[in-house]
Amino acid sequence: MSLTIDQDRLQKEIDELAPISDAEPPAVTRIVFTAKDLEARAWLNKQCAEAGLAIRQDAIGNTFFRWAGTDSNAAAVATGSHIDAIPNAGKYDGVVGVLGGLEAIRALQRSGFQPKRAIELILFTSEEPTRFGIGCLGSRVLSGTLTPEAARQLKDNSGQTLMDTLRNAGMAGDLDSVRLPAACYHAFVELHIEQGPLLEQAKIPLGVVASIAAPASLEVRIEGAGGHAGGMLMPGRKDALCAASEIVLAAEEAARASGSTDTVATVGICEVFPGAVNSIPSRVRLTLDLRDTELTRRDKVLQSIKEKAQQASENRGVSVQFHTVNADAPATCAAAVTDALEQAARKHNLPYQTMVSRAYHDSLFMSRIAPTGMLFIPCRNGYSHRPDEFASTADIGRGALILAETLAGLAS
Amino acid sequence: MSLTIDQDRLQKEIDELAPISDAEPPAVTRIVFTAKDLEARAWLNKQCAEAGLAIRQDAIGNTFFRWAGTDSNAAAVATGSHIDAIPNAGKYDGVVGVLGGLEAIRALQRSGFQPKRAIELILFTSEEPTRFGIGCLGSRVLSGTLTPEAARQLKDNSGQTLMDTLRNAGMAGDLDSVRLPAACYHAFVELHIEQGPLLEQAKIPLGVVASIAAPASLEVRIEGAGGHAGGMLMPGRKDALCAASEIVLAAEEAARASGSTDTVATVGICEVFPGAVNSIPSRVRLTLDLRDTELTRRDKVLQSIKEKAQQASENRGVSVQFHTVNADAPATCAAAVTDALEQAARKHNLPYQTMVSRAYHDSLFMSRIAPTGMLFIPCRNGYSHRPDEFASTADIGRGALILAETLAGLAS
Repeated sequence: MSLTIDQDRLQKEIDELAPISDAEPPAVTRIVFTAKDLEARAWLNKQCAEAGLAIRQDAIGNTFFRWAGTDSNAAAVATGSHIDAIPNAGKYDGVVGVLGGLEAIRALQRSGFQPKRAIELILFTSEEPTRFGIGCLGSRVLSGTLTPEAARQLKDNSGQTLMDTLRNAGMAGDLDSVRLPAACYHAFVELHIEQGPLLEQAKIPLGVVASIAAPASLEVRIEGAGGHAGGMLMPGRKDALCAASEIVLAAEEAARASGSTDTVATVGICEVFPGAVNSIPSRVRLTLDLRDTELTRRDKVLQSIKEKAQQASENRGVSVQFHTVNADAPATCAAAVTDALEQAARKHNLPYQTMVSRAYHDSLFMSRIAPTGMLFIPCRNGYSHRPDEFASTADIGRGALILAETLAGLAS
Repeated sequence: MSLTIDQDRLQKEIDELAPISDAEPPAVTRIVFTAKDLEARAWLNKQCAEAGLAIRQDAIGNTFFRWAGTDSNAAAVATGSHIDAIPNAGKYDGVVGVLGGLEAIRALQRSGFQPKRAIELILFTSEEPTRFGIGCLGSRVLSGTLTPEAARQLKDNSGQTLMDTLRNAGMAGDLDSVRLPAACYHAFVELHIEQGPLLEQAKIPLGVVASIAAPASLEVRIEGAGGHAGGMLMPGRKDALCAASEIVLAAEEAARASGSTDTVATVGICEVFPGAVNSIPSRVRLTLDLRDTELTRRDKVLQSIKEKAQQASENRGVSVQFHTVNADAPATCAAAVTDALEQAARKHNLPYQTMVSRAYHDSLFMSRIAPTGMLFIPCRNGYSHRPDEFASTADIGRGALILAETLAGLAS
């Protein structure tokens, strides 16, 4: 089997998808089920149809592009990722796994390879939490991590329910039908940019992920007392933003003091109410994103942040409430998949390094129902979720090559 | 002259104006030149027309309701305030001065009083800075504090210019015609809720303002580096929100440490970019509102905040830029007007206390062109700029009574 990736075509497709977005290039904003997201999905369907793949879409918009195997009774091998993008993001996050997966399948087709097991490319719905406040929406429901009942309660920022959004997007269907059984896939493997600087720093083109860090996402609501910025003197104030600022800094300090660089804490959203130049903030909503490879250490960091928030609450006479949006357990990648990845890398004489995945990925949830692995490629400066996110054509091509080889190995 | 305030009618009018708003009652949101603001202005025009007042509107929307005097050559005596309201505000701020002023004029009419000087009620445009980022827009241009050239450059948050907004609101005219000469008014006096707790605490119904604190409004732009909340480890981060949090707390600390309770500092707006749960904040925009009765002390507090911001900038490798939106000098009230106010209070056996005004008021700018004074009435808990802002019918009635008596004294 002579396997060749058409890296220029792959790059061309990445560049073609990027401007289907609500942001000014090079930025990409592609919120799930907006007109641009639906346009991007239609564009992807077209590319996959041209590759001769059968298309199935489930009731939450996960889309399965299938290359049939010779043994129709064998569980399929799957790869995939997402194309939704947070506001003002880059063009590689998720997309490399989707279009790289498509090119891997086309490369296998060109090589004359005949898979025994079907090979599926999966486009997951809403890996990003932007619209409904919860990431990996499609893979959560697919894997049974999020129940259809809970999914039906979800609303976007404008108050529109997920169900109405799905219906408006032309996706009628029963969410109960989305969940897949545990034996459905023989293996799942996701290609992704690292979203961190380690591969680039080590000048190693491939990262084989051994474990996926445990992310927790919380909402912090601070309620103080408003008032006029001129009339209300300092001693009587219950400024919610001052309390919030203490919590932001406490989160940073706790993560830094955890004893491991694997601990990260981020306050990404800070909404101030009423939000006027001359009004004391009466309410603030923060989001807190905490990640670690060790669940106990993550819990300890959260405890420390909560204690400092409690102190701020008492000192300032404001109320502080933490609400857990989700707190997922870490996942360990399946040896069968990591072995196949390493074998593929060795076959093509490409160095690799064993790594931790620190970001949320659909793989975290696919690991609940299938032996799962991830393959990382370098990205410049570790930048992601920003317009200058970048991975080279050659690195993407190498990733797609090893993905193809791995899929072939797993599907044989 | 037997002067009687119809305090029930005045309360009824306040309650009638309040729901002409973009917020759910009891909250009031009335942003200048929105449909609701124009509807409220039309409603006010009707009340004033019924009181027999002549109406003139200038090119920036300041509206003058005039009761002619017997001596048409004498400079008029004026009172007035504003009816625009920040998002989620209350129904008394500004409104008490406008509707209280109208009732004061009607009370004088009922009493049979014949003013020698014309008495004018002025409705000022955009006392609140919500839409165009600068407070007291109407009185600034009226008094020559803001040049027509500078006003023509103003844009709202959506990018619409003030000039387009005025045209859309049906206010054609040349801004050069707005400025009034210094001899135009014999005196100006503004009735207003205190927006602080002192009168209520002292159980005194009236405050005669001796000086108006010096407000400065700044914008702080912090620029760090974004990235993925999972992939970017703590040591490499340049989190703009962490730097912003240090500045918020530095502002609070500097105001508290100034040595005077007259110093207040407020960060009322904190906008985070890109604003996603899983993105490190790359940019933050803060507003900083600083007020003091002493200009040198206010400047010292600002210097201290800037120094701490500089430290945060250096420690974190983020850039911090301060931009002064406006920095107005404090004003001293005219003895002629404070004397008239005190004389009126004594005549009606009402106790008063001499006070400092800590909020922005159109009086600050009217003092540039006319002998100016202010009369405060108590408001509950000192609350203002929030839905539970409250002043009692009796207190408002007492304020209108003393305003009427003062106008009579000044106009005789």
